[in-house]
Amino acid sequence: MLDVRPSSIVHRASDLRLFACEVTLAASIDSLRNIAAQLRIDSVRSTSEAGSGHPTSCMSAADIAAALFFSEMRYDPKNPQNPDNDRFVLSKGHAAPLLYAAWAEAGLFPREDLLKLRTIGSDLEGHPTPRLPFVDVATGSLGQGICAAIGIALNARRIGSDYRTYALLGDGESAEGSVWEAADVGTFQKLDNLCAIVDVNGLGQSRATQFGHDMDEFFRRWTAFGWHAIVIDGHDLQAILDALKEARETKGQPTVILARTVKGQGVAAIAGKDGWHGKALKKGEEEDKALAELEQQLVSGAPRPEIPPPSGKSKPTPAADYGTLPPPAYKKGESIATREAWGAALAAVGGVDQRIVALDADVKNSTFSDKFEKNFKDRFFENFIAEQVMIGASMGLAARGAIPFASTFACFLTRAADFIRMAGISMVNIKLTGSHAGISIGEDGPSQMALEDLSMMRAVPDCVVLYPCEAVSTAHLVTAMAQHKGMVYMRTSRPKTPVLYEPTDAFAIGGSRVLRQSDNDSATVVGAGVTVFEALKAYDELQKIGIAIRVIDAYSVQPIDAAALRAAARATRRRVITVEDHYASGGLGDAASEALAADGVAVTRLAVREIPRSGQPDELLERYGISARHIVEAVKSSQ
Amino acid sequence: MLDVRPSSIVHRASDLRLFACEVTLAASIDSLRNIAAQLRIDSVRSTSEAGSGHPTSCMSAADIAAALFFSEMRYDPKNPQNPDNDRFVLSKGHAAPLLYAAWAEAGLFPREDLLKLRTIGSDLEGHPTPRLPFVDVATGSLGQGICAAIGIALNARRIGSDYRTYALLGDGESAEGSVWEAADVGTFQKLDNLCAIVDVNGLGQSRATQFGHDMDEFFRRWTAFGWHAIVIDGHDLQAILDALKEARETKGQPTVILARTVKGQGVAAIAGKDGWHGKALKKGEEEDKALAELEQQLVSGAPRPEIPPPSGKSKPTPAADYGTLPPPAYKKGESIATREAWGAALAAVGGVDQRIVALDADVKNSTFSDKFEKNFKDRFFENFIAEQVMIGASMGLAARGAIPFASTFACFLTRAADFIRMAGISMVNIKLTGSHAGISIGEDGPSQMALEDLSMMRAVPDCVVLYPCEAVSTAHLVTAMAQHKGMVYMRTSRPKTPVLYEPTDAFAIGGSRVLRQSDNDSATVVGAGVTVFEALKAYDELQKIGIAIRVIDAYSVQPIDAAALRAAARATRRRVITVEDHYASGGLGDAASEALAADGVAVTRLAVREIPRSGQPDELLERYGISARHIVEAVKSSQ
Repeated sequence: MLDVRPSSIVHRASDLRLFACEVTLAASIDSLRNIAAQLRIDSVRSTSEAGSGHPTSCMSAADIAAALFFSEMRYDPKNPQNPDNDRFVLSKGHAAPLLYAAWAEAGLFPREDLLKLRTIGSDLEGHPTPRLPFVDVATGSLGQGICAAIGIALNARRIGSDYRTYALLGDGESAEGSVWEAADVGTFQKLDNLCAIVDVNGLGQSRATQFGHDMDEFFRRWTAFGWHAIVIDGHDLQAILDALKEARETKGQPTVILARTVKGQGVAAIAGKDGWHGKALKKGEEEDKALAELEQQLVSGAPRPEIPPPSGKSKPTPAADYGTLPPPAYKKGESIATREAWGAALAAVGGVDQRIVALDADVKNSTFSDKFEKNFKDRFFENFIAEQVMIGASMGLAARGAIPFASTFACFLTRAADFIRMAGISMVNIKLTGSHAGISIGEDGPSQMALEDLSMMRAVPDCVVLYPCEAVSTAHLVTAMAQHKGMVYMRTSRPKTPVLYEPTDAFAIGGSRVLRQSDNDSATVVGAGVTVFEALKAYDELQKIGIAIRVIDAYSVQPIDAAALRAAARATRRRVITVEDHYASGGLGDAASEALAADGVAVTRLAVREIPRSGQPDELLERYGISARHIVEAVKSSQ
Repeated sequence: MLDVRPSSIVHRASDLRLFACEVTLAASIDSLRNIAAQLRIDSVRSTSEAGSGHPTSCMSAADIAAALFFSEMRYDPKNPQNPDNDRFVLSKGHAAPLLYAAWAEAGLFPREDLLKLRTIGSDLEGHPTPRLPFVDVATGSLGQGICAAIGIALNARRIGSDYRTYALLGDGESAEGSVWEAADVGTFQKLDNLCAIVDVNGLGQSRATQFGHDMDEFFRRWTAFGWHAIVIDGHDLQAILDALKEARETKGQPTVILARTVKGQGVAAIAGKDGWHGKALKKGEEEDKALAELEQQLVSGAPRPEIPPPSGKSKPTPAADYGTLPPPAYKKGESIATREAWGAALAAVGGVDQRIVALDADVKNSTFSDKFEKNFKDRFFENFIAEQVMIGASMGLAARGAIPFASTFACFLTRAADFIRMAGISMVNIKLTGSHAGISIGEDGPSQMALEDLSMMRAVPDCVVLYPCEAVSTAHLVTAMAQHKGMVYMRTSRPKTPVLYEPTDAFAIGGSRVLRQSDNDSATVVGAGVTVFEALKAYDELQKIGIAIRVIDAYSVQPIDAAALRAAARATRRRVITVEDHYASGGLGDAASEALAADGVAVTRLAVREIPRSGQPDELLERYGISARHIVEAVKSSQ
């Protein structure tokens, strides 16, 4: 039996009318309608049981989710990690109960589990995290999921898969600038395997959104950014299916489906009403009435739709062989900036591990990621000056098996601080590098000087933070970065620094190197990066007046080499001085201080303590208290 | 003598042609041409002398700067802080030498000073900072100046001035999402006193920009976002003047002038060539040849244009009278969330200080900034879900004399971390509030839990960081925030907490309160916010087994009350335990640790040490190691 029904796909919002007809199996639409009702029921029940959550934000998108998960998307519902599964990113993460309901409906876990929503024993958290096997990246900070989707879509090309990527956004979310960064990159990369769907329910948390239901506002923006845009009624299942088909058939550009919806759709008492954002229906009469209304929307006898399987087209990435990597060829006496050594090392590991990809934000000739690009053009992604989408895309790539190295000036990584925070929650395997750290960049001035990056990265639990001072250790640590499974940050410097180590010296995450020591050391000076050389100068100065110090290169700032620091503190009369090209808060000094707290050892911190200014690097180290002279004075005061 | 010359203003990029005629004084155009040549000369000379900088990025915009500073803008060149001066924001901050040259040309300081560019003794830094009286906010992190310009334009309304605001952006800069956040807010606020100019020179730092000279790409985006857009040849002075006039006459929406330019314009050897970003011409032949070429472009005998004066229309804001502020009316026994007390206090100070304005990002009903909005609708600015422009606009408002309070969930302030970094460099008087801090929010899960905000804010030198635990102290500290000149952050909490203090108790920036003490205290426990109550519970538990502890409410995390902590440490056998609803890095523990380092006292830090999950607040405090039980154990271990 066939049902000929009109599609309400329209190509201009101002032109919202019925114009197309499409032949569809009635069973299919009825089935989807039935599922949409069930998803609404589950969203209401789970949030009412939890006593909190966002049921109305689920209900506006329930028809979209039904169409996606039970008609459009090809995936194995029993194996969410199948590499060829179509991917779904819930960019509007607060609609988590809808996502969970869809996977329960698909059969991944029992529907009863939905009632454990938001409880400490369940992975069905308030917003999705990758503790769940069907979540690639944590969402809940708006405007991020679409950036991750860019990376997931890029990954399909990397592994030769035809999987498609779908991202569901809210309309309020579209105010986030990161959405437009993603839009630009999607166009630049011609990601026709990517489809965004915007659930335009017109209501934000605290009031109507800027554009309400003016679909033209959305249509104009997305088409201006180069996307194929389709405006539909987001509760018309046939229109949703037709738009998804049109997206699938659109080549050379990504598609966005702009779906006009009603927040709380399905329950008359709350549908389209302000004041219902992030509110669960109260258990008892309020919930019961809503459920009764929704249950009437179930379509009896509607057959369960078949979920189309993935294609299985992807090719496995060849195994990495780090054993073939030659040792770094730097020699003592040479001077090389760590940023340049990083670029060379990245190009080297890129040769032995094809999972590695690199991303930059229009500074590849300063970070030296261009060395990687030169060798591996297909695995290099330019993000222009858009750090948020760079990190977001890295998250998506990493979630699907790539090992992304993203680089820019360290200070500009702060632009993506919220993405870095969410990358931590997502537990993704991304590698970040910030070059031009600290006042040692000199003349460009404070806006270009990262002095809070160590703090920002140390505030991500389990993020490894590396800060090598010279080329050999940089090269070894880039290899360690690539091989470590988890988030790693490396801080590199602008000035050239002399090679200190032999190519065969060992450097490990959590390690350090003792550069100077004797049996008579009267203090330990802990440096990292450029300050290691100030510490060595201070050592020489102090030698002249008969004071011996221990000098440690703490190239692994997190985890810091607590054992080595504690041993040094014990051997040097519990006098420990840290010196860092960073503000006093959250960096090397705090890391050392915490490592030594259990032994009751307090740390004297030399660090930058005011907004710096332009000047020559040496002038600035002196002026802001982290030069050899300041170390000498601190050692003397400690005696 | 009149010169009738064609204007090349066009209204569609695809339609770039000559169509309008305008009558202009020949002297004027010749004068501007002469000035543009001089600005290019100064940009080359100063960067060559410095040996670094971005001369080519100055040269593409020299004609625009000449037209703005010497024909369009009304200002007092001897008093850059005149409240009615038209304002100019160099959003593309790397063109700083051009800005400096313009002010030298306007007569603010001698041209010879330009040769001190980037030296440690000069305020003419590599990128502009407000150390210079004509710079409102520091720029150099792209995409921020336009956000500040939004705030500066809003401020004109606040003070009743007709000053206009101009922001000069680069084309590469347009990739930053924050630019589009600003575009949306500019449209929402109908800022027809704002004019952005995009210097489309087609070349980024490392390669051609995404759109090169395709002016349609820019035109489509800006018009889609609701701006009046004008495409011109950015080296045609008449076209620039005409476009500026058209912008001035455009009502109800902001205008963007999209200027097609050539990077390095004026010197044939480098004009339009890739590889010349951020490179000074070498002193000697390279510089000399360029200067000779530019000197030929000087127009001999061109009269010096008159700079039009500002209107002087603004009204002074009535003086604040904090003396009339009643003490908070909370009573012991009540329970009020600090976020709610913050909202009430903000509404109260708003009543006695009309400089105060409030900004929020669609969470006013959760942060409680809606209490302020209710009383002072004209001084409340909704930014929807766009935290970057919220902070950027706050910076602009503050730079022009307002006292902006910007609020959102604390975790989402990280979205604007780079803006916060630049606000520090800008030394602006902004007040930030992050609500829903920490795991104590409970069920919403980690994406909504700020656990790095104290770290982020402490990494801004001189930023005051406050974290009250209850309503009375919150109210007093909001008053202190408003009266303090400089950046302040307050962290507020979601759960209701009991009132601890009397309305007449005193709370000051840098202060603390001792809540429990005796002569026999065997350890000091330092809490802030929700952990104060855990510390009080621990006190009760420990009392039962005969252990007395000192409990301190460290509501001022930066500056921390070092004197009080040192006194407590001395009185409690040098045993200090901090407990915070925050990650271990960069927060209360590190602050206390540094305050005590000079006395050789080490600090035991109880803090969240892994990515948390959804659950009930009490369950989470227990699970993540910051509950009363953990404090009790830490105290016992310290004995």
